[in-house]
Amino acid sequence: MNNSMNVDNVKGTRDVPPEQMIIREDITSKIKSVFRQYGFVPLQTPALENFNVLSAKGAGSEDIGRETYSFEKEGRMIGLKFDQTVPLARFVAMNPQLSMPFKRYQYDRAWRYGEVLMDRGRYREFEQFDIDTVGSEKIVYDAEIATAAINAVKELGLDDFKLYYNNRKFLNELLDFLRIKNKQEALRIIDKLDKKTEKDVLEELKKEEVNNAKKLLEYVKKSFGALSKEFPQSEGMKELKEFRRYLKIFGSEEYAEYQGTLTRGLDYYTGTVFEMKVEGYRSIAGGGRYDNLIGLFKGEKIPAVGIALGIDSIIDTMIKKELIKEKRTVADTFIAVVDEKSEDEAIKLAETLRRKGNNVEVNLTGNSLKSQLRYAGKKEFENVIILGQKDIENKQATLKNMKTGKEKKIKL
Amino acid sequence: MNNSMNVDNVKGTRDVPPEQMIIREDITSKIKSVFRQYGFVPLQTPALENFNVLSAKGAGSEDIGRETYSFEKEGRMIGLKFDQTVPLARFVAMNPQLSMPFKRYQYDRAWRYGEVLMDRGRYREFEQFDIDTVGSEKIVYDAEIATAAINAVKELGLDDFKLYYNNRKFLNELLDFLRIKNKQEALRIIDKLDKKTEKDVLEELKKEEVNNAKKLLEYVKKSFGALSKEFPQSEGMKELKEFRRYLKIFGSEEYAEYQGTLTRGLDYYTGTVFEMKVEGYRSIAGGGRYDNLIGLFKGEKIPAVGIALGIDSIIDTMIKKELIKEKRTVADTFIAVVDEKSEDEAIKLAETLRRKGNNVEVNLTGNSLKSQLRYAGKKEFENVIILGQKDIENKQATLKNMKTGKEKKIKL
Repeated sequence: MNNSMNVDNVKGTRDVPPEQMIIREDITSKIKSVFRQYGFVPLQTPALENFNVLSAKGAGSEDIGRETYSFEKEGRMIGLKFDQTVPLARFVAMNPQLSMPFKRYQYDRAWRYGEVLMDRGRYREFEQFDIDTVGSEKIVYDAEIATAAINAVKELGLDDFKLYYNNRKFLNELLDFLRIKNKQEALRIIDKLDKKTEKDVLEELKKEEVNNAKKLLEYVKKSFGALSKEFPQSEGMKELKEFRRYLKIFGSEEYAEYQGTLTRGLDYYTGTVFEMKVEGYRSIAGGGRYDNLIGLFKGEKIPAVGIALGIDSIIDTMIKKELIKEKRTVADTFIAVVDEKSEDEAIKLAETLRRKGNNVEVNLTGNSLKSQLRYAGKKEFENVIILGQKDIENKQATLKNMKTGKEKKIKL
Repeated sequence: MNNSMNVDNVKGTRDVPPEQMIIREDITSKIKSVFRQYGFVPLQTPALENFNVLSAKGAGSEDIGRETYSFEKEGRMIGLKFDQTVPLARFVAMNPQLSMPFKRYQYDRAWRYGEVLMDRGRYREFEQFDIDTVGSEKIVYDAEIATAAINAVKELGLDDFKLYYNNRKFLNELLDFLRIKNKQEALRIIDKLDKKTEKDVLEELKKEEVNNAKKLLEYVKKSFGALSKEFPQSEGMKELKEFRRYLKIFGSEEYAEYQGTLTRGLDYYTGTVFEMKVEGYRSIAGGGRYDNLIGLFKGEKIPAVGIALGIDSIIDTMIKKELIKEKRTVADTFIAVVDEKSEDEAIKLAETLRRKGNNVEVNLTGNSLKSQLRYAGKKEFENVIILGQKDIENKQATLKNMKTGKEKKIKL
């Protein structure tokens, strides 16, 4: 026995204990069922990727590049994936036989070697639920992705959220119109209007030598109606209009809203960009169209659009809004025994109930009945059966519903 | 565009494409539902562990120690977990508030930096589905674990499998009785009787200077009845008898069988050991009782028993036995359109069907009807709807079941 061992998690990682994990399984299973309704199919890619794949020019922003959880193994640079999109792009490049459009969902971990802010939910190992449609430039797929994400979040019981959208082509046209030179920098800073004051953003734009900064701020704050009148010929505006038309057909327009200040930091977005938020909380999803990323790996342009739902952020928001509470058991029924002699019959009863599809925990601890019932109360089982020698003689047990107080006789 | 980039998987890892992943989700969801029937709750632990945890003396066999996928990161040794048991032990040590017995399931990846044998299903990144019961020495929990695993495998449609068992205490008593000195080595080699000839095993025992080797082989091949008569006072034999008695109570004894040559290589097993096999195929699960492992991290003895189902091995076996075939879609219904003008109505129809819980893929490609129907055939959708302007005018569509040929009218 070695008591002095430093037994701890690796920095920036954590365990998810059962009371939280039960919620997580419930939530991800609901999300999955909605994505399946839209015909998305599952894909799994490894945790490990060659570093040259993860660091492909254009695959991530500069920030992500710096934050790749990479290491050297026998002279090779290996990394843990920082998102599900780059591995998807690699997979598509490696599988030319795939029929297009390829619509896939993936629920998986990702890793980033960045600053750890546990109180703000920033870990080095985290989870995402992604959907992407690969192989078509048609805007209808942008709207399908947005609708599937909206319906997945609705399925969880959240309803005061919005999917905000914008279009990178339109943003670029706007930057051209305003003759702004330092485009990438301008987009990166504008995106912060969500979290920072206008004054701070303006200062940052000026500091980074973005010209015409004040005018830019004025334009990204204009309404969709005003902008569509001012730029009737814009390519990005046409896409935005088509996207809005399709949202109506899908019936999801009431959960979507144009947001001129939304740009998304990543370099690889080329058209529609999305972000989902519950009013007053941090972002729960983000994504957009990236028509050039897969080409990095394949040498042939393959358009794509996708969104990633941040599972931790969704759970965090739902807990704060008291939409979910921790569950301590997956079993619906608990069998307590009056004495250890009754254990064998309790096991047989449990097996009978399980064969009927029930989730049953049977007490085998040898603890006192009092302690068993305390345990049952703590775990909040819905039904409790107390089994003793008398019940066994009478060949029946009593099942008590702990919520309603109703009792039911079960034959042994 | 960089065409010369080496786009490939990291050695020993692989993608799981949708047609395989759909099967995998189906199988793991069935296994999970059975484990939940027994009251096991989910736990998640990170992929990354501090190397000192993974390499704790006694946490793995020497083989596993050598094969840990470890690396240095900013002067610290980090590793990817090689199983789910060591992280569970760490979790239990770090959470003294857990109520015992703690019964958890975990479906997760593990990594080993060993030889890669793709044709034999040996990868560096693989998946396990584990259940463990922590905090009790009672043999009834060994039988509960065995029964839950047996029923999980039955649920998948496999039935010609067996859960083989033995007991390490009994094996050690046998080795004492035979005055064998090199015990650990003897157990490790005896376990190979499953794959190697008796002659080869005997030679290896002699080569490793295990004394009384011939006699040992004779004893591990004896029947349970013969051994129980010869060693009535043995502690391990008492445990084996109790385990057998409980299997009967759980009703799972017909799927379990004593196997004297089964030892399990790992150093940490202390009592019952299990291995599940389908006749003629490689092992699909393994586990046992490990009463000293958690103490390595906690400095206080905490008994435990568990089993790990090898998901790849189960799928591999089921495919070879033609119990499953690849599925190409999760959608039950495909909507084809006669012309692009009908797309908007097709989307609306799909949304209506989805709201009723159907999984629907709607064609938005703009491809010819012929090509759409070829796609529907290839993906093997159960239902197909062909929507055209006439249907829209008549406000109804025809749904055709592709298996039965039956047609059904749906109001638009």
